[in-house]
Amino acid sequence: MTRYALTVEFDGRPFMGWQRQAHGPSVQQAIEEAANTVTGETVVVHAAGRTDAGVHAVAMRAHLDVAKPLTAFRLGEALNARLRPAPVAITACEAVADDWHARFSCLGRAYTYRIVNRRAPLTLERGLAWQVTQPLAAEAMHAAAQLLVGQHDFTTFRSAHCQSASPVKTLDSIAVTRDGDRLAVDVAARSFLHHQVRSMVGCLALVGLGRWSADDLGDALRAADRARLGLNAPPDGLYFVEARYPA
Amino acid sequence: MTRYALTVEFDGRPFMGWQRQAHGPSVQQAIEEAANTVTGETVVVHAAGRTDAGVHAVAMRAHLDVAKPLTAFRLGEALNARLRPAPVAITACEAVADDWHARFSCLGRAYTYRIVNRRAPLTLERGLAWQVTQPLAAEAMHAAAQLLVGQHDFTTFRSAHCQSASPVKTLDSIAVTRDGDRLAVDVAARSFLHHQVRSMVGCLALVGLGRWSADDLGDALRAADRARLGLNAPPDGLYFVEARYPA
Repeated sequence: MTRYALTVEFDGRPFMGWQRQAHGPSVQQAIEEAANTVTGETVVVHAAGRTDAGVHAVAMRAHLDVAKPLTAFRLGEALNARLRPAPVAITACEAVADDWHARFSCLGRAYTYRIVNRRAPLTLERGLAWQVTQPLAAEAMHAAAQLLVGQHDFTTFRSAHCQSASPVKTLDSIAVTRDGDRLAVDVAARSFLHHQVRSMVGCLALVGLGRWSADDLGDALRAADRARLGLNAPPDGLYFVEARYPA
Repeated sequence: MTRYALTVEFDGRPFMGWQRQAHGPSVQQAIEEAANTVTGETVVVHAAGRTDAGVHAVAMRAHLDVAKPLTAFRLGEALNARLRPAPVAITACEAVADDWHARFSCLGRAYTYRIVNRRAPLTLERGLAWQVTQPLAAEAMHAAAQLLVGQHDFTTFRSAHCQSASPVKTLDSIAVTRDGDRLAVDVAARSFLHHQVRSMVGCLALVGLGRWSADDLGDALRAADRARLGLNAPPDGLYFVEARYPA
C-alpha cells in the first residue's frame, strides 16, 4: 500500500459538505467513488477537516491508501478524469510516509471568509460570498476580532452538533481587511469547533454594522453560552484555504 | 422622460449574450423586462457594447429612458428586485443628461481576460476563466502583445459576423500579468471588433505555449486575413470591466 496526500479544491454549492451523508452528495463520496473506479479497491479518504454544506475549499488536504502501483501524477490525473463533472479537483497528489495523516498530522488550519458589502445582489459570486447590504466598518471588526485571539472557551461560537471533546481552542490569528466592497476575514488555529468560523464572522458583522460594540463581543465570548451567539454567517463565504504539516 | 445611466454586473453563463436574440435569453431582454414591469412602459436599454454568449461583465454601462417619476435609487432597487433570480445586478443607477448615450458617448472600453494555467480542472471558476493546461510564458505573451498596440487593420482578429464599418481600430494598451497560476490580459481601446479580444488572447496563448513566436503574431496581424487566426479563446474568461465617458 502507498499513502498519497491530496490537495483538493472544490465548489461546495452542490454538496452536503465534506463528510459522507446518507441523504445527499458529499465531497468525500465523490473522491472515494473516483478512487474506487481508478484502483478497483475500496478506498477511504481522510481529510484535514470537515466542511459544512455549501462551504468551499481552495486547498483542503486529504489522504488515501492505494495498493495498485501508480505514480502520484497518474493517480491525480485519473482522479480528476473520474471526478468530472463534479466541481472537485485534485490540484496536487504526492506519495507520503505511511504514518502521515491528513487529520492527525495537521499542525494548523486556515480559513478565509469572503463578504461582499453592497446593496446590489450577487451575480458572478452568488453562493461564493456572503452579501451584507448595510455598510460594515472593517476597522472596528478587525479591532474587536483581536479579543478572540488566544485560548478561550468558544462555547458561544460552537454548534450544538459539535463533536469536539472540549470547547477550549486557541485562535492563532484573525484579520479583517477591506478591498473596495470586498471584505475578507482570515483566521488560523490548530483546529476549530463546528461552526466556529461562521459564528465568529456573524458576530463580527454585528460589530461592523454598529449593532454590537467590541465589549458586547467580549461579553458574548466570556459568557460561554450558545444562547449569546448574535449571528451565524451563512456557509457561502467560507473557504478552507490551508492545512499545515511538519516539514 | 428622464434618462438613467446604469452600471450592470452579470454572469454571462446562462445568456446568449448582451443583445436580444430570438432563440434564447439575453441580458438586454432581462433588464428590459424588469424595466417594463417596474415602469409600465415599453423600455429599450442601450449598452456601451455587446457581449457574446458566455461573456461576463463587472461594469457594463447602459441607459434607458423612463417617464414614470422615480428616483434613480428607487429605479435601481426596483430593477434588481425584478431581475431576480437572473444573475444580473444593477450596481449603480443615476439620472443623466438626455444626450448622454451609453454607446455613442463612450470614449473607451476595457476588458479583462482571465486564464487559469494548470492541469487540474476548474471548480469554483468553471465558466469564469479559460483553463490552459500547458505552461504559458506570460512575459513572452506580454512582450509579443505590444505589437498589437496602436492603429492597425485587425481583420485577422475579427469575426466573420462583425458589423463594424471598418477593420481598422486603435488598441490603446494591452498587458499580460501572472499571479501564481492565474494570468490576466487587460486591454483598452476606444472600441473593439467582434471577437477581437478573444482572438488576440487566443493567439497570445500560442505565443505563451511556444507554438508561435512574436514574429508569427506580427505576421498574422499584418496579413489582415482571418484565415491567419491561430486560435480564438473561449468566452468563459472574458469580462467587460469599464466604459469611459466625458467627465
